[in-house]
Amino acid sequence: MKTKNIDTGLLPNLDDMVPGNSIDCIIIGFEDQQLKILILKWKFVEDLWAVPGGFIQVDEDLDKAAVRVLRERTGIELPFLEQFKTFGNCGRRDPDILQQIIDSRNSNPKIIEWFQNRFISTGYVSLVDIQKCQLKLDLISEEMKWAPLNNLPPLIFDHHEIVVSGVNYIRNQMNYLPVGISLLPEKFTMKDLQGLYEAILNRKLDRGNFQRKMLKLGIFIRHEKELKGGSHKAPYLYSFDKEKYNKLLVNGFGFNS
Amino acid sequence: MKTKNIDTGLLPNLDDMVPGNSIDCIIIGFEDQQLKILILKWKFVEDLWAVPGGFIQVDEDLDKAAVRVLRERTGIELPFLEQFKTFGNCGRRDPDILQQIIDSRNSNPKIIEWFQNRFISTGYVSLVDIQKCQLKLDLISEEMKWAPLNNLPPLIFDHHEIVVSGVNYIRNQMNYLPVGISLLPEKFTMKDLQGLYEAILNRKLDRGNFQRKMLKLGIFIRHEKELKGGSHKAPYLYSFDKEKYNKLLVNGFGFNS
Repeated sequence: MKTKNIDTGLLPNLDDMVPGNSIDCIIIGFEDQQLKILILKWKFVEDLWAVPGGFIQVDEDLDKAAVRVLRERTGIELPFLEQFKTFGNCGRRDPDILQQIIDSRNSNPKIIEWFQNRFISTGYVSLVDIQKCQLKLDLISEEMKWAPLNNLPPLIFDHHEIVVSGVNYIRNQMNYLPVGISLLPEKFTMKDLQGLYEAILNRKLDRGNFQRKMLKLGIFIRHEKELKGGSHKAPYLYSFDKEKYNKLLVNGFGFNS
Repeated sequence: MKTKNIDTGLLPNLDDMVPGNSIDCIIIGFEDQQLKILILKWKFVEDLWAVPGGFIQVDEDLDKAAVRVLRERTGIELPFLEQFKTFGNCGRRDPDILQQIIDSRNSNPKIIEWFQNRFISTGYVSLVDIQKCQLKLDLISEEMKWAPLNNLPPLIFDHHEIVVSGVNYIRNQMNYLPVGISLLPEKFTMKDLQGLYEAILNRKLDRGNFQRKMLKLGIFIRHEKELKGGSHKAPYLYSFDKEKYNKLLVNGFGFNS
């Protein structure tokens, strides 16, 4: 389906969209030993950030809408995202902020009515390698950044709740999701892996215990140390044995800390 | 909010409802050593059953709508249901069956338009003690029953997929949900408990192994055998120590089979 821009040239044709339903994407990366969340700053809301979200086309499956919305809002191409929860509280959108959005846009009555509608939003989550993401700002955003989960700026509406819920989903499902392989670079140290687990679980783990349990999973390839120049004490680098990794993932890693 | 019946006297006022969104409830019980699902037969669809579902009032939170819909459709009063997934495929409702529903109801144009709308439905699940449920048929249903999960009659639209998805959710989350305490009677044998776990996991478990792991959790009260009349070989009856049960549930049972 083609989308055409109306009003300020920034919106798809609302007639092609399912009214009252939206999608919000929680995109989680790992950098500097902490989880980061991809957020956008809309042009027409002061001082508030938002997770990338959008609407559903009338002839588009919900899961496919999530993929398209993420691509259009951020430039990130993913084959799929994981649905984690639908947010449907009546008061989830602050009416004052809603009014601010409407006022700032010279909207026509139809668009105002569209936005004033109650919205039920389905949350999708994905784990990505920040280094591999080619971000591309869309026309309604003025800035996009990876913000540390533990130090997020004020977010619009219930977006903070949606972020927390998405991260909780990853935490609860981490034995069944490709957490390590999605978030770490090709080669990593056991310290990197432990840092990732600590960031997701939000607590410190015992080093010896962690490494012993991890290595027991048998999903790693250990690389020989390159001795030229580097210290003999440099830690081993590992990568995932993708075949074993995926095989283990089917029934869950069974890793508990 | 009051609801009033219009058209055939069987529908709430659609002006009070969020268009294009619905709720479907997967209510799971345990009887005769198998999981059972509560299903309804609508008056106006031949030969097809459905899970209890309904619409969302415009001033009602999604989670509260699930509680009300379940009460209105089945008579079951629950404090809350657990949301597990939202179903938003374009083709989730078979157009021929939709037409059959519309044709059979002398509907006015507004109602026809309402039903022909695309619907996005959020699935909620709950575990209940079948013996304690007081079922009450509503005006649009002609029959209601507990059907074995492994022997369901044909279900309408994508309701079979919704059932499977709800049961999978319970299976994946069983360490974090009050499965035993919700589905078993006050007193039960270890064999009953094993039967329940086998029904959810859909496979046989080793008896010795199961009992050893279960008893290690320390959440049971063992009752003295009543000797009058009964055989000395009668199995022990157990009940859950609710305080210990709930305490353990917070971090998950950590039970793996």
